[in-house]
Amino acid sequence: MYSQAMYELGSRRSVIREIFEYGRARAAAIGADKVFDFSLGNPSVPPPDSIDDTIRELLATAEATLLHGYSSAPGDSGVRAAMAQHLNARFDTAYRADNLYITTGAAAALCICFTALTVPGDEYIAFAPYFPEYQVFVEAAGGKLMVVVPRAGDFQIEPERLAAAVTPHTKAVIINSPNNPSGVVYSEATVSALAAVLKEKSRQYGHPIYLIADEPYRELVYDDVAVPWLPAYYDDTLVCYSYSKSLSLPGERIGYVLIPDAVTDSRGLYAAAAGAARALGYVCAPSLFQQVVARNLGLTADIAAYKRNRDLLTAGLRELGYSYIKPDGAFYLFMRSPEPDANAFCARARGHELLLVPGDDFGCPGYVRIAYCVTEKQITAAMPAFAALAAEYGLQA
Amino acid sequence: MYSQAMYELGSRRSVIREIFEYGRARAAAIGADKVFDFSLGNPSVPPPDSIDDTIRELLATAEATLLHGYSSAPGDSGVRAAMAQHLNARFDTAYRADNLYITTGAAAALCICFTALTVPGDEYIAFAPYFPEYQVFVEAAGGKLMVVVPRAGDFQIEPERLAAAVTPHTKAVIINSPNNPSGVVYSEATVSALAAVLKEKSRQYGHPIYLIADEPYRELVYDDVAVPWLPAYYDDTLVCYSYSKSLSLPGERIGYVLIPDAVTDSRGLYAAAAGAARALGYVCAPSLFQQVVARNLGLTADIAAYKRNRDLLTAGLRELGYSYIKPDGAFYLFMRSPEPDANAFCARARGHELLLVPGDDFGCPGYVRIAYCVTEKQITAAMPAFAALAAEYGLQA
Repeated sequence: MYSQAMYELGSRRSVIREIFEYGRARAAAIGADKVFDFSLGNPSVPPPDSIDDTIRELLATAEATLLHGYSSAPGDSGVRAAMAQHLNARFDTAYRADNLYITTGAAAALCICFTALTVPGDEYIAFAPYFPEYQVFVEAAGGKLMVVVPRAGDFQIEPERLAAAVTPHTKAVIINSPNNPSGVVYSEATVSALAAVLKEKSRQYGHPIYLIADEPYRELVYDDVAVPWLPAYYDDTLVCYSYSKSLSLPGERIGYVLIPDAVTDSRGLYAAAAGAARALGYVCAPSLFQQVVARNLGLTADIAAYKRNRDLLTAGLRELGYSYIKPDGAFYLFMRSPEPDANAFCARARGHELLLVPGDDFGCPGYVRIAYCVTEKQITAAMPAFAALAAEYGLQA
Repeated sequence: MYSQAMYELGSRRSVIREIFEYGRARAAAIGADKVFDFSLGNPSVPPPDSIDDTIRELLATAEATLLHGYSSAPGDSGVRAAMAQHLNARFDTAYRADNLYITTGAAAALCICFTALTVPGDEYIAFAPYFPEYQVFVEAAGGKLMVVVPRAGDFQIEPERLAAAVTPHTKAVIINSPNNPSGVVYSEATVSALAAVLKEKSRQYGHPIYLIADEPYRELVYDDVAVPWLPAYYDDTLVCYSYSKSLSLPGERIGYVLIPDAVTDSRGLYAAAAGAARALGYVCAPSLFQQVVARNLGLTADIAAYKRNRDLLTAGLRELGYSYIKPDGAFYLFMRSPEPDANAFCARARGHELLLVPGDDFGCPGYVRIAYCVTEKQITAAMPAFAALAAEYGLQA
């Protein structure tokens, strides 16, 4: 009577969501300060004050019928021009408004790319660990997701493994840097090697293999780590972005797809993206927040809070004998499970009121994700629980 | 290299959009007051003042991290409860929060329904004249749109024609009342007859045939015309709604799908809708405006302005000898073309700076749509042009 595939997608609750619901129930039972929920990637830092100030100013000055009215489908042209200009100043590029398609967040941007690109038989390559919705989005568009395992130790991409995974059916490679769930930022060496493989394989198969850069965490990097601008390394790159994390506006759903002129048949692909947006029911991205974002380009929420959290957490866990992948960005720590079965480890952690997410769902068994977009207080308060758990496993610094 | 179907969808500009762009160019050339653009269904009346007041109040009182943060995927539960309560007070029903799935506008609501319902081979029935995106959305979900012509004269549904169009593959029937583009409201007699056919055919084929009620214009009705509440007539009804027109917030993208308990396997279908929303990349509807809408339920923009426009327009056109379908709702007038080819008529109208939309794209050749969501002044100013056009055709009152 209805689609069984959609029923399964809607009724199979995500592991993360389930842990989160457990956490809420547990908090109600024993008190929120006694449950250490590290399950959700929900920004804990408020948006910059200027966001609300901009909203007030727009309400006071703009005409309501225009402010809350439809924008053009690809987004307001003035907003797109401002976004292009901001990118140009930052990356020394020459993008125009019509290289950008404003989307209802990064998820919409990804779905639009997959729907625009996919023809029957297409394959997409992602690198473990990866955001599990990639599989949902790719399959909904009629494609198939292939997964390449990362290099042990630093979780960078191994070019040989990528080369071995590319087939004549590979439509695109997805990379997410800074990475959810590992916090890894792909280095310039990694990006150069990746670009070389894709150029070679595109030549070999006689058609472009696109690179889809999923970059909602671009601004969340710490110390002096640089996130390479991928279109500078590989022409056939589409960038999917979201202001959810940088401006702490995840509920307001503003992002974009960037399709540079250097992309093969760039205008044709842009039209296909517009068609995909239309077919998926995305009439336009929310109007008020298009204008709000355009007036706050270059600002971020207080990212330093995440860095303090990261430093506090890594120092504490290291001292207890845990090992983890070096987290240079995003707000996730990918910790090695002290026993091979990360699900069993998470169950034990739960006994200490620590809510962690097993890496299995991200295509990386044997690890757990710790989302440190929480209060500093929660990290400090959780340390005795991490210590008791370490003791159970006999860990030593 | 990319999907040809999506390219065509994105590059084939809609007729309406093309007329609108022509109108802008023409306005720049000869002055906006000399071009009479009746092409776009964009609310011309501002939202009620309380919308901006509510936004200011929420900014002043709510915690920013929550206000702009993710809501749960089906929408904030408090907002859904308020929406359910509002429906219950109005229609004497007993809906709960979890009968509602808040969507990013009515287009998303429709796409979610089609994606949740469709299995290969499925057919959907719409009644001409119909919103052309139905075909785009149904085909994107893998279904096929079948069109039933209306009854001459009043454009109500003929039950016999519907019965003849239903096949074992009919998954759902879509009705849009008040109707875009005809302004027709389906009467209680029509709705009762429609429900009888669907009950009979569901029994005959041994599975439910759903009724999808697309109702963004529900509140836009004039005089004492009533819009029947479809779930009261037929159990397997899904209601797709949007606040775009009633609150003049088309750019802010808030709507819902209502799946009442009376629908066959209601909870299973709700899960399938949740799965479809996920597969299409709809993470959650915009957070701030979920809260704004919840605090303004039952309010509308100044609908009386549309009624004044309708009365002015119909009186003027009648006097000039034009004939049209009686417009009881929405903000559209469906006028008979004085020559059989509505495209040719629209081209002639353009010679008088009148921008009208031919009915062909709505599945109704021989008619034109006049969107009267414009200023009263524009209607008055356009009358001499309508008169000159009538004279060309030798029309007489």
